[in-house]
Amino acid sequence: MAKRNLPLSKVYALMESGPVVLVSTAHKGKANIMAMSWHTMMEFEPPLIGCVISEMNFSFKAVKATKECVINIPTVELAAQMAGCGNTSGENIDKFSKFKLTAVPASNVTAPLIGECYVNLECRVIDTRLVKQYNFFILEVVKAWIDPARKDPKTIHHLGMDKFMAAGEILKLRSKMK
Amino acid sequence: MAKRNLPLSKVYALMESGPVVLVSTAHKGKANIMAMSWHTMMEFEPPLIGCVISEMNFSFKAVKATKECVINIPTVELAAQMAGCGNTSGENIDKFSKFKLTAVPASNVTAPLIGECYVNLECRVIDTRLVKQYNFFILEVVKAWIDPARKDPKTIHHLGMDKFMAAGEILKLRSKMK
Repeated sequence: MAKRNLPLSKVYALMESGPVVLVSTAHKGKANIMAMSWHTMMEFEPPLIGCVISEMNFSFKAVKATKECVINIPTVELAAQMAGCGNTSGENIDKFSKFKLTAVPASNVTAPLIGECYVNLECRVIDTRLVKQYNFFILEVVKAWIDPARKDPKTIHHLGMDKFMAAGEILKLRSKMK
Repeated sequence: MAKRNLPLSKVYALMESGPVVLVSTAHKGKANIMAMSWHTMMEFEPPLIGCVISEMNFSFKAVKATKECVINIPTVELAAQMAGCGNTSGENIDKFSKFKLTAVPASNVTAPLIGECYVNLECRVIDTRLVKQYNFFILEVVKAWIDPARKDPKTIHHLGMDKFMAAGEILKLRSKMK
């Protein structure tokens, strides 16, 4: 699982399709993971990501207190673990241990990378203006990693409740969009 | 293309997978369309959607001035038109005419629905605090429509530049997530 540096200018292309991501945190000596679908790119470079982390999530306190997290992008092979992370609370269990996920030290933040995810984005909270009203955090990606051996990664996308979708066929369309 | 009312409580499930959407507006007697991938759900009900509409987009002025728009979800059959909308500016052309899309009157906003899209969300801008810094608008969905005849809609997801992905296989995973 040797990851290589991913240029920050390429982060948006991995996030703008709207995959379910796993957010890892570390707070008071405890690492945790939550599943998240409510996120959007807000800027290309430095990459800014806006996301809703509900105060009902155990991770909320960790992100608010440490102002750090890692966004990890899982592929369909990790679907069961992703759902497991979404169905449990870090208040009661150690999700890394429970779901056999590997906590890998990050380089710029205290929160760990999830080794099994093909992309890891080390993030710092840069704007909390909308946290009180909407639980909406704005993150800056300060370091990004990708597994170069991973061909044709199929991301997971949430369709509400217990329904998810795996990334399908690639379409090449002429686009002037960056 | 008889659309039926979609309960507002069901909107999030159609948006949280991160599809490319077409945003339609009407301003100074002119209707326009832009393609958008940078959006996220922010609340279940009433459904709130946060999105980046760049001031470089012709639609920016229309959304800012009218505080209204419609979010239309296209499927893969509309991929060419979607890319066309993303590659052109409403400053120069009438996109409804150019891409043979049908402007259907909305019930709660002046902006038209795009008839060919299987879902249409009539939206009002409710929060502009982050527009100046990030071009980030928060929209409330006030009325939603769906084409009940549409089975297995395949949404389109952007992967940067000219690369897109069609929604693939449905995964059923136990989930406590709403």
